[in-house]
Amino acid sequence: MAKGIVIYYSRSGNTKQMAEIIAGAMNDAGLTTDLKPVEDVAANELVSYDAIVVGSPTYYGQPAPQIIQLFTDSVSRHGRLEGKIGGAFSSSVNIGGGNETVIMSIIEAMLIHGMIVQGDLQGDHYGPVSIGKPDERVISQCKRRGKRIAELTKKLYI
Amino acid sequence: MAKGIVIYYSRSGNTKQMAEIIAGAMNDAGLTTDLKPVEDVAANELVSYDAIVVGSPTYYGQPAPQIIQLFTDSVSRHGRLEGKIGGAFSSSVNIGGGNETVIMSIIEAMLIHGMIVQGDLQGDHYGPVSIGKPDERVISQCKRRGKRIAELTKKLYI
Amino acid sequence: MAKGIVIYYSRSGNTKQMAEIIAGAMNDAGLTTDLKPVEDVAANELVSYDAIVVGSPTYYGQPAPQIIQLFTDSVSRHGRLEGKIGGAFSSSVNIGGGNETVIMSIIEAMLIHGMIVQGDLQGDHYGPVSIGKPDERVISQCKRRGKRIAELTKKLYI
Amino acid sequence: MAKGIVIYYSRSGNTKQMAEIIAGAMNDAGLTTDLKPVEDVAANELVSYDAIVVGSPTYYGQPAPQIIQLFTDSVSRHGRLEGKIGGAFSSSVNIGGGNETVIMSIIEAMLIHGMIVQGDLQGDHYGPVSIGKPDERVISQCKRRGKRIAELTKKLYI
Repeated sequence: MAKGIVIYYSRSGNTKQMAEIIAGAMNDAGLTTDLKPVEDVAANELVSYDAIVVGSPTYYGQPAPQIIQLFTDSVSRHGRLEGKIGGAFSSSVNIGGGNETVIMSIIEAMLIHGMIVQGDLQGDHYGPVSIGKPDERVISQCKRRGKRIAELTKKLYI
Repeated sequence: MAKGIVIYYSRSGNTKQMAEIIAGAMNDAGLTTDLKPVEDVAANELVSYDAIVVGSPTYYGQPAPQIIQLFTDSVSRHGRLEGKIGGAFSSSVNIGGGNETVIMSIIEAMLIHGMIVQGDLQGDHYGPVSIGKPDERVISQCKRRGKRIAELTKKLYI
Repeated sequence: MAKGIVIYYSRSGNTKQMAEIIAGAMNDAGLTTDLKPVEDVAANELVSYDAIVVGSPTYYGQPAPQIIQLFTDSVSRHGRLEGKIGGAFSSSVNIGGGNETVIMSIIEAMLIHGMIVQGDLQGDHYGPVSIGKPDERVISQCKRRGKRIAELTKKLYI
Repeated sequence: MAKGIVIYYSRSGNTKQMAEIIAGAMNDAGLTTDLKPVEDVAANELVSYDAIVVGSPTYYGQPAPQIIQLFTDSVSRHGRLEGKIGGAFSSSVNIGGGNETVIMSIIEAMLIHGMIVQGDLQGDHYGPVSIGKPDERVISQCKRRGKRIAELTKKLYI
């Protein structure tokens, strides 16, 4: 059976809320999906998931150090994330504050693992972005993204 | 039947040679693949392919204007490239000369179309990169990438 | 005497409005600044300015082809933009719609010319971003950016 | 008196060697420059330098977690790096292995601090890149970059 995980780092709770909505939507779409703060994820766990979605606040246009550390540690599993489905999301204080560069950084790391990433032709194309607390637009983008990731994962892994 | 296309812009012939090798490898891997210079591709043609691979020289860290124009024109088909497989490659004069940013630009455009992109865990992770004329390393990267793109396309579209 | 130019491509008028505000703020800050649509700018003109600011709508996460074409043409002046001050801005329909990647593309092209770019510690860090028609936040970001670019230019060129 | 620092993370020694050459060239060009591994740098020290150059190996296309941590910690000094000169460099195992995205990540973080970054019209445009152990090309790029950064810093800070 295919399985997903949504991993996040959050201090204000905004990224965590996005993570909950995305994981909820993945489960609703029929992909059993775990939800974990990055502090509770060891790199070797990643291999047991078919879809890995990662979210972070925007710190100087980059993912949080904890997220970067997870990817750095994942080198011990290099080759074993090959072909898995990836996704990314971010929150920040400002529009134009670096959200997209956070998301692209996560996508780059996933591509280097040989993972598969799909964009979205509507709204937040690279991945859901929240400016401050998730509003209705963000909630809808997170639901939509979770559903899309689940569907692609099921197509490839069931 | 699934079908692919490799689209390139080339003046020196380096990007063209990469395109030929990638298209060859896609055909060899069982995905019927066309090869066309960007000047011969109309945006509306893109919808008839399941895999779209785009290559460009590196002009100020960006794809050639002809490549950017094709993506701009493709807005008339927005929504109809959804779920297709994408890939990118580039050539440049120097190491560190902007190849990766060219490839990421093409990948970004594909993600905005809702397309699917897979990285490679070996070598040129985001997409094949040639410094000057393709050498053995580049030829091998292009072959490998073409095969991988064909395989993912066949998995999703056959 | 130091001189600046703001170059833009605009169809809806949003990017044009941003360009007008930025150019106005540069003039107000004491740097004589021209304002031109990209269609009216030849690459060889660029050498006569000390500050070059470029804005574009967001087309598939990339600058408009006309902007990319200007940078491609500017190769004929490679070396002669060395040390000039650069800046970038963008407009798009959606938050997370690719604005930041447009701005970073323009900045990359400027860096490859050996140009100098300064970020902003407040608001739209890489460059002003408008979602749809410029609102008060955007107008204030554009004024602030124009002033900052003019001040850096005057520091280096007067 | 103006002062610079070159900060690096290195395990294999390649990034360290680049750091030494860049710092040496900055000193040779008349800018007193310190050289420190990131482990020995506290965020609050950054404010005492006029030029800050940061180098990292390429871990999944991103800077090392230690580098990201330094930028994250530097939020406590947000506003106080405004107008300082920045620069970035990276090493990696492969061509196309993510060097440029590492450098652009560091540049993005610097821009968000309101720092000033200049590209180079020759060679490794965004910042020096080494594929494996620094060869003659890399050594020459590092020397050239150090000199350029020192010169810009002296122009603005002396």
